Parts: sequence; structure tokens; C-alpha cells
Amino acid sequence: MTDHLVLFMPSGKRGRFPTDTPVLEAARQLGVHVESVCGGRGICGRCQVEVQEGVFAKHGITSSNDHITPFGGNEARYAEKRDLKPGRRLSCTAKVLGDLVIDIPQDTVVNAQVVRKESDGRVIERNPAIQMCYVEVEEPDMHKPLGDLDRMLAALEAQWGIPRPAIDAYLLPEIQKLLRQGDWKVTLAIHHDGEAERPQLIAVYPGLKNEAYGIACDIGSTTIAMHLSSLLSGRTLASAGASNPQIRFGEDLMSRVSYVMMNPDGREGMTRAVREAVNGLIDKVCAQGEIARSDILDSVFVGNPIMHHLFLGIDPTELGGAPFALAVSGAVSVKASEIDIVLNPGARTYMLPCIAGHVGADAAAATLTEGPHRQDEMMLLVDVGTNAEIVLGNRARTVAASSPTGPAFEGAEISCGQRAAPGAIERIRIDPETLEPRYRVIGIEPWSDEPGFEDAAKSVGVNGVCGSGIIEIVAEMYLAGIITEDGVINGDLTARSTRIIGNGRTFSYLLRDGEPKLSVSQTDVRAIQLAKAALYAGIKLLMDKLGIDHVDRIGLAGAFGSFIDPKYALVLGLVPDCDLEHVKAVGNAAGTGARMALLNRDHRREIEATVTHIEKIETALEPKFQEHFVNAMAFPNKVDAFPKLSEVVKLPERSVDTGAADGLEPGAARRRGGRRNRG
Amino acid sequence: MTDHLVLFMPSGKRGRFPTDTPVLEAARQLGVHVESVCGGRGICGRCQVEVQEGVFAKHGITSSNDHITPFGGNEARYAEKRDLKPGRRLSCTAKVLGDLVIDIPQDTVVNAQVVRKESDGRVIERNPAIQMCYVEVEEPDMHKPLGDLDRMLAALEAQWGIPRPAIDAYLLPEIQKLLRQGDWKVTLAIHHDGEAERPQLIAVYPGLKNEAYGIACDIGSTTIAMHLSSLLSGRTLASAGASNPQIRFGEDLMSRVSYVMMNPDGREGMTRAVREAVNGLIDKVCAQGEIARSDILDSVFVGNPIMHHLFLGIDPTELGGAPFALAVSGAVSVKASEIDIVLNPGARTYMLPCIAGHVGADAAAATLTEGPHRQDEMMLLVDVGTNAEIVLGNRARTVAASSPTGPAFEGAEISCGQRAAPGAIERIRIDPETLEPRYRVIGIEPWSDEPGFEDAAKSVGVNGVCGSGIIEIVAEMYLAGIITEDGVINGDLTARSTRIIGNGRTFSYLLRDGEPKLSVSQTDVRAIQLAKAALYAGIKLLMDKLGIDHVDRIGLAGAFGSFIDPKYALVLGLVPDCDLEHVKAVGNAAGTGARMALLNRDHRREIEATVTHIEKIETALEPKFQEHFVNAMAFPNKVDAFPKLSEVVKLPERSVDTGAADGLEPGAARRRGGRRNRG
Repeated sequence: MTDHLVLFMPSGKRGRFPTDTPVLEAARQLGVHVESVCGGRGICGRCQVEVQEGVFAKHGITSSNDHITPFGGNEARYAEKRDLKPGRRLSCTAKVLGDLVIDIPQDTVVNAQVVRKESDGRVIERNPAIQMCYVEVEEPDMHKPLGDLDRMLAALEAQWGIPRPAIDAYLLPEIQKLLRQGDWKVTLAIHHDGEAERPQLIAVYPGLKNEAYGIACDIGSTTIAMHLSSLLSGRTLASAGASNPQIRFGEDLMSRVSYVMMNPDGREGMTRAVREAVNGLIDKVCAQGEIARSDILDSVFVGNPIMHHLFLGIDPTELGGAPFALAVSGAVSVKASEIDIVLNPGARTYMLPCIAGHVGADAAAATLTEGPHRQDEMMLLVDVGTNAEIVLGNRARTVAASSPTGPAFEGAEISCGQRAAPGAIERIRIDPETLEPRYRVIGIEPWSDEPGFEDAAKSVGVNGVCGSGIIEIVAEMYLAGIITEDGVINGDLTARSTRIIGNGRTFSYLLRDGEPKLSVSQTDVRAIQLAKAALYAGIKLLMDKLGIDHVDRIGLAGAFGSFIDPKYALVLGLVPDCDLEHVKAVGNAAGTGARMALLNRDHRREIEATVTHIEKIETALEPKFQEHFVNAMAFPNKVDAFPKLSEVVKLPERSVDTGAADGLEPGAARRRGGRRNRG
Repeated sequence: MTDHLVLFMPSGKRGRFPTDTPVLEAARQLGVHVESVCGGRGICGRCQVEVQEGVFAKHGITSSNDHITPFGGNEARYAEKRDLKPGRRLSCTAKVLGDLVIDIPQDTVVNAQVVRKESDGRVIERNPAIQMCYVEVEEPDMHKPLGDLDRMLAALEAQWGIPRPAIDAYLLPEIQKLLRQGDWKVTLAIHHDGEAERPQLIAVYPGLKNEAYGIACDIGSTTIAMHLSSLLSGRTLASAGASNPQIRFGEDLMSRVSYVMMNPDGREGMTRAVREAVNGLIDKVCAQGEIARSDILDSVFVGNPIMHHLFLGIDPTELGGAPFALAVSGAVSVKASEIDIVLNPGARTYMLPCIAGHVGADAAAATLTEGPHRQDEMMLLVDVGTNAEIVLGNRARTVAASSPTGPAFEGAEISCGQRAAPGAIERIRIDPETLEPRYRVIGIEPWSDEPGFEDAAKSVGVNGVCGSGIIEIVAEMYLAGIITEDGVINGDLTARSTRIIGNGRTFSYLLRDGEPKLSVSQTDVRAIQLAKAALYAGIKLLMDKLGIDHVDRIGLAGAFGSFIDPKYALVLGLVPDCDLEHVKAVGNAAGTGARMALLNRDHRREIEATVTHIEKIETALEPKFQEHFVNAMAFPNKVDAFPKLSEVVKLPERSVDTGAADGLEPGAARRRGGRRNRG
């Protein structure tokens, strides 16, 4: 008997196998994950593969459909009843006859799933914590008085090689009925997550159960986003979002912590609120995906440390003051029912680890998604919220910090600021000659200087400027020379434009005269300066830690990162100089990371290991924070050059001598750095 | 540095250790279980040992108090505050200086425990599933942002060598408060049961928690018995019993199964009833032992298969008919809260495995206690209830069966029968010359022919005969010649005694003429014959299986076994011939087995392994059951000799030709063997 070379794509894993080895068996031996619910009986259709024909010189393989057993038997029977695309083979049935290149398609869908919305294009290799195992159980026999459950588990071991798992207690009274309902054929859902864990039997279905679902959820302080995925195909069936109802207890994180401290039932109320919202979203995604809640067997949640704690029912008070002690930083595994999340009674919940007291499981998830720790290039990952979570590093070393940017980037603390919603200005350009602005409003197609704008504005309204718009207007004011590099609105310009208006000692820029009147005051510019200086100073501390003076790539995560124009982020000096094409919005990287952890438990181990190696910097304790902060008050920066930005944007000349932080009260940086100590 | 020989008693484990090895460390290295809660800090006092001085020629050791470091340091400090008996040493502090014989006392009690009642004299070597670990935790540090829980678990690993355990979800919100309450010193309760299990953190106490308790409970169909034990010293603090409230749903097991089948809420009602009774008993033992329920961290339950299933909330209907399928036969581990048993929220529950559909976890526990599988002699273990559970074997091989004896041995189906209670006749002697009886009544000190009896009888009453009394009276009637070896009451004796009274075709024996009139009828004798024949036939099938014609030891378990006089059990032929001194009541062997499993998880592994090796015989399926049954209708037996019994009791001459099973309807044996098929 000759051995044949079999190569699996896309993993590239390869090995030699004797004639007549089932392709599924070959994959298993190589550690290539091919789904199979029926355990090779040719009835679930999950184990589809395709033969790649041709000469693969690089691999020294000539692969051909002649090198695999002919289509037939179980495959033909399956294809009669179900949809099996031409060229597809069932790897449990097809056997190796010669050298082969085998492709594992990522689109194997055996049920007519409703797919309303893909969360993103990303294909995540699967190795879920839930395994569905169809078993055929011996009927009871007076001569062999093993219990029904025990015979079922013996079948699991014999047919799947899985040693006796632990049993969820709720199943004990159900087993006999289910076995008889399924005529001694049942599908077992086994949860196995981590080497140290014993496999756990969490659900039992009569007959063949050919589907299992999971949810991945990012609990943001403002918004909760959820995806529903098939654990067996990886497809996202539905996505939904909702406001975090905790907002009624406090807009930003620290006000929620204060609420807990001031109100005896505050923690409980906020925990209940967020869990109810999550349960409401589960209703939504189940309705969209047309599945039952009880078919959801796994769930992954991420969030910043305060959301993480409140969701788990943990009092976040300790996070409100130094030393910002997390109750738990490691990954958490519980039953979903233990935290009042209503799924299948056996469903599990996994929460990614937190990185530090203000760098949460959301930052860990974003790290997992973008993978600075997997690449050679030096990557900066920034998630801007009330606190900015910052991760910087590469394969060799990764560091992280949070910086207290405050809510200015979200439009709070800004006179004309508002949430991103219809009627909010999101894009702005200022003519450097006339100082006249043109802008675009959410919900209105034309720009403000295009026909039809004013008509539309009458119905939609122009009510304020959203976060990304505020970045743009301040950056454009700077590029147009309206504000100096130190952030002072130049009062001399009142002579040139009626849009520059004096208010006592300072000046403001009139963006739109109407109802309401929208303008940018000196105080607004200061608020943006304070926020961006805090962010940049945090980033600089991490760069100092790594001894680097530039970064190769920048990922801007979260809702803010998705809407901000990277160019303006650089012009204002939110982040260090970088090739513009390497500064990218990475969308809801936290949500994607949650989905990765849902679909592949190896990703859980990866981020758990990564987090233990990430070095954490507490910005408030670093002596150089002050200096970096003060330098970063200037646009783009007092001392750091932005040569790559200069190649694409003409920055104003740098003044040789300026009044530095005019209008900035002494001690602001220190207070800002210490604001988390409040309360 | 020289190595010294250290021998630990009572285990006899020995090894060589260098000078200055702490005795506790030496014990650990040899796998000798010495308790220590404080991890060697000299504050818990649990690790007490005693040096045995002298020349131990057998072991080649001269042991002396000069061979251990002098008393002092932590020991002196401990002895100042607490009671430390003279000669006792703290093994964490005392170090090896020379050859030693070290005794691990089994009476180390560091708290003033109330001990109202010892369950029995048995000393059980401890290795509980719960380990109490005192740890000192680093305070939070902004430079090292590990969560409080994570630092606590790092301390556990560093100070106890226990890798990160899984966490009970209910603890997550409690950890920070407890750490601060205990000033960063806490005691962790770790549950670790079985190699495949990951250690689990189930409770956390601020500061040093120097006690932990467990309960062991035998759920009988009539009575529930519970012991409360210290997991750290092994002492039994309290014992309590209660009637099984399920009795109101049906006296015997099969009537309870019928109740479930006939009533939609029957299973639920019986589950609730038994769990409420168990919770009530927990109240009782806690009150007796003066401890809080929340200090109980572990629990072990045993019961026959139907009690086992109902307690776990499993419908027992399948046990009511062939093939008598158990829902689960293997050992079951759940959280106590999952089956509504109210202890510490993290407390665990373990149920011993069942052996077969009618040989339950109680028989497994009795097996664990008496240990036929640990000895060379052939041991027969019988627990008589409505079904007799029979285990027979030795180190080489063990077999088990149940036999449907019916309730006659408990006094039911007998005209004068009643439960063992004041007013019940429990001992009887019949004068073979006069045929006059004398008897003893529960609650009355003198025998019936002694002064003062009749006065006492007026107040207590003489109302019936309890189970053990019925055995005695039938056996005495046989020995006195009143009934033949075939169980026929000899009508010829009416001439000799007025106590022999005719009733149509058959006769009865008048035991007491009064209110009520107590007599033994032919039907009563037949009921005892049927019951004992079923029991004996079951035993014979097991002897056949092992190819043996006698047994070396007999253990009679349960309440019945405790009160029956072994001599009369042999005279009637309930069990095979045996040296009388080797036939013993073994008390509540099931309850003791539960306590062994509570105090030592090695015993759990032992019985789990043993049960998988026990061969089960389904008596109803064995062709020879009929034949054995019919032979066993005779006293003591039609074919089997009782030579050892004959040495101490003069048995009536065996008649050469008898009317065999006169009065026994044909087919009774078959119906009896198949009675479990009913319903």
C-alpha cells in the first residue's frame, strides 16, 4: 500500500495517508477543522470539500478527481435529498486514492439560513467551543444495567473519541425522554473550551440536530451591538444594535460609577438594565435570523472594564479611583443563565480578558481582530471613547494604556456638539482665502453650497456638529489659519471675515447663522486640544516604552474611528505621523474580535496569552505625561514633526515663538491626568 | 547532609528526607494527607502530629524527640492562644533532624465543636474533595493591573501549587469586598474531585476560615438519615433522621412509581417532598452542631434507584418495568443549589453510582463500607427492604442482584405485623415442650414472663410484632415443631396446646390473647416463606455465578439487618449457612459509605471503579431462579445443608418425604420473580 500526499487549503497543512483513508480522517489527523455533526454517516452534509485539480508544482502534487473514490454511496443519497453543489464531496465518504489538494470551502451551508446582513466580509476559520455530535445509542438491556445516560456517553466515547463529559444538571431528568423521542439517536452538544476544562454535555437533541448558533456582543457605554452566527458554518445570520439603557444613569462611564456609589441599588439597576437590553437584542437577532433562542448554545461578550463589571454584576466602584483595581482581569466563563442571559438552558458565556483597569475586554477584542501581536510592523490601535484605549506593538512586544480624553470627541463639552444623527454636520471645508465654510449634514445629500441643500435643511434641520465634524472643523480652522498652532483663534481676522466674532477676551468662528446658531468658540477649541493632547500623550508614553519614534500602521477603532477622516486626525495631531494610506478605520474591531472568539476557541487562548504579555502603562503615574501633554496641546504637535502628513497636506508654517498654552490654565494636564481619581 | 528515614502512622508510608525538611512537607511528598488550612504559617493548628519515641525494630528506626526540631516559634505562639495537647507538634513548623516515626492523630480538633452523637466508631481516613486554603494576596498596584481575583489566584498558585481554578459565577461580584474585609488575607474553598475535573473555587472567606463541614445522607424509602461531619477533622457533629414524606404517596417503592405514572405532577410532588425533608434535616443537624448552613460545603447522598432518581428530579417510571432502565447509573456531581438543597451557595453534591436498576447507590455505599472487593474472604452483603439488594464477592470478583422480597420482612402482609415502635414484640422464645411463648416488647424492659411486664403492658400496649419479631416467631415455631420444614402449621398439635387453633383447612398459633389478639396464621408463614425464598434464590444465583457453595462472611445491612438475630436468619434460611460469628449486622452501612465518600474522595474513585466491575444478575431472567425459589420455600432449605448452624442450634430432623410446597399455589414463584413488571 502506497502513501499519498494530501494537502488541505486554505491552511496548507499536509501529510501522507494510505489508500482508502477517508478525507475527513486525514483532515482530523492533521488538525484541520472540518465540521461533521453525524460523525461520518453521510447524513449531515457538513463535511463538504472540493478537489482542486491540476499540477501544484510548488507542493509537488498532481491533484485529480481520479485520485479520490468516485462520487456515490452516502454522497449520492445525501445529494438526492439535499442540495450538494457540483464538485462538492462529503469528506467522510470520499477516500484518498492518490495525491490530492483539497479545499475546505468556508461557505458550506446545509440549512436554508436567512442571512439579512453580514457583519463584515471577514472569514473566520472555525473551531468553536461547541461540538455537535450525533450518536446512536444501544437500547437498554437487563443483562447490562448501565443507565441510559451512561450508555449514551459510552456511545459518545466509542463513536467520537470524547471521554465521559461532565453533565449539566438540568439534563439529568431529560435524557430518558429525549433518547426515546429520538429512537435512541440523539445529537449531543459538547462544550469544550481550554485544555484544563473537562468536556461538558450542555444540550441533547433527539435525532440529528444539524445546526447550532452563537452570539457575539460588544457592550459599549453608548451602544450595544450583537451578531448572531452559525457555529457550524460561521455565517452571520443577523446583526442588531441598541442604545445602552444605562445612559439614563449617566452619559459617561465615570458618571455611572458615581451613580453606583451614590445609590444603594445603583449597581443592581444598571446590571439589570444592560442584561435586559442584551436579552432584547437576542429577541431581535433571533427574529431576524428566524431561529429559536434555545438553539443558541454559546455567547461571547466584550466591553470596557466598567461595562464588563456591570454586566457580570460586579460593583465598579474600585475602577473609579486609584489604583483602579479590576475585580477580575482574566477571561471569564460562566453559564449564560447564571448572568440572566436567556438562551438554551445549557448555553455558555465567555468574556474576553481585560487588559487593565481602563483597557478592557473591548480593547482585547480589537487587539485580537487587528493582531499587532501577529505582525512585524509596529501597529497603533486606538479606540476613542470617554477614555481612549491604546494598544501599540508588534510580534516582539506589545504595550497598552488608557488616556482620559473625556467626551469632547463625542461632541460633548462642545458648544455646538451633538451625537451623530440626522441634522448633524459631519464634514466641513473652509476656504483659506474667504474663510467661508461649506459642510455636509447627516440626512442631507448635497453639500451646503450645492443646490437643494437649504430646502432639505428646512425639513431635516441643521442642529449641531457631530464628533467627526468637530475634528474636521478645528482642523480646517487650523489649516485656514483661523487658529494658530497653539489653538488660539486669531482675533486679527475679524478684519477679514465677519465669521470671526469677538467674545470679550477671546474669539469664535461662526459656522452657520440660523436657528440654532452654530459656532466654534475658543473654549471649544481648548476642549479638543485637551482631549487630543491626552490621547497623544498616552500614545507617546507607549512609544517611549518601546523606544520608537514612529509607527507603521494606525487602526482607528470604534464608531468614532469609523467616521473620522484619518487626514484630519493627523492634522490635529491626535495620533503620530504616519503614511496616510496606513491609517485606517477598523470599524467595530471589538465586535469582530468577539465573533472570532465565538467561532474559534483557539482565538480565546490566543488573546488570553497575548493579554498576559501586554505591558500596561498607567499614564497618570508616568513623569513624562505632563511634558508630552503640554507639547501635544499644539497642532499637530509642539516638538514632533509630521513629515509624511506634510507630503499630502500643506501644514501652516510653524511659528518660532508662541505664547504656548495661552488660555490653558496651569495644572490642567495634571488634573486631566488625574480625573479618574474623582469621586 | 544526611537523609533521615521518616515513617508515618497509621498509613505506614515512609521515605527519606534531608535535615530540616518540615514534617508537613515530608508527609505531602509521600502522599500522606495532613490537613493544613494556613499553608504552613503556624496559625490554623490543623497539621498536628506526634512523635512516637522508641526503637521500631521492624522498620529499622529509632525514633526520638531529639530527632525533630525543638518546640518553639510558631508552635509556641499557637499554643499560647489555643489548646495544643502535650506532645503535639505542628508539622508545618517542626523539622526533621533524624529518623522519626510520626503519628497523625485522627482526633485533631481545633474548634470547640459540639459533638452530640458519633455516628459510629469508625475512623475514616480523610482526603476530602474540599480543600481550605488560606492565602495572603498582594494589594492592587497600578503598575501591575491584574484583577483582584487574578492576583488572589496567583497567590493560590504560588502559596499552594494549585493552578488557576474555575470560579463559581456567584463569587465574581463578591471577591473585591471579601479581600478588603480580610485585609488581603482570605481562605479559599477549592473543590477538586477526580483527575478529569479542573479545581473549582466554590467559596471565599475573609481572613482565616478554619472549619468546613459536609453532610452525608442516606435516603431510604422509609427513613432519611443524615450525618454532619467536619471535613477538616472527620468528626461527626450531629446526626438526625426523619420519615421519608413520600410515604404519603405510597408505602413501598412500586406504589410510588405507580403514583408518578398515574399523576401528572406526581414526580414533581415526590421530588419536592424528599428535598424538603432533606432541607429540614439540614436544619436539625445544623442546630445540633451549632453551625451555619452556609458553612456546609459538600454533601453526599445515597439511596435506592427510585429514591436516587426522585431526589435528582428524574421520572422513575422506567424503573417500574423491564428492562428497568436507570436514567443514570454513574456517579453524579452537581451543585447542591441545582437540586434545591440549601447549603453554602457554592456547595457541591455527590451521589454514588447505582449498581443496577434495583441495586442502588445505597448498595454501592454499603459495598464501599464493608469492602468485599477489598478482601480475600467471600462476603455476602444483604440489604433487605421491599427489594433485597445483594452483593457477593471478594477481591477477585464481585456480583450483585436484587430480589423482590416484598414488604413481609418489614411487617407488612403479616396479620399481626407492625412497624418497629413501642408496643411491638421484637423478641420471642417458644418452649418446645409446652409450646408457650415468652416475648419482649419495645418500650417494656421485662420479658413477658417476668414481674412487672403486665403492668407496663397496660400503659405501653402490646399491639403487634415488628419485622425482627416475625422472623423470630416463625423460626421458633419451626424449632418447636409447630411448623414443618415446609411451613405447614401442624394441626395435630391442637391436642397438645390451646395455642394451636384451627381456621377451616389451616391452623394458626396464638401468641397473645388480648386486645388486639396476636396470632400467626398459615398465610403469615407463607408470606415469610415467599419473601425468604426470593431472597435466598437471589443469593444462590450469585453463588452459582461465582461457582461457590458457601460464603465466609455475611453482613446484614439496614434497619432490618440491625435488629434481626443472625441465628434466626439462618434457621429460617434467609441466607446460606455460615459461621454464626461471621454473620453480623453492619448497621447503616449505606450511611457510613456516604460518610466515607464525603470525607475521602479516593473512596469515590474506589466505588466508581468497583461498580463498573461488579457483574449484575437480573434474577427474573435466570432460568434457575424457579428451582432455587422452590427449594428455598423449605426451612432452612430443601436441598442445601446448614452444617455450621447445626453445630450451635439443634434443627428439627429433616423429613424424608414431604408434601413439598403444600398450600403454595403453582406459579407463585414465577409471579413473584416477575412482580416488578407490574404497572
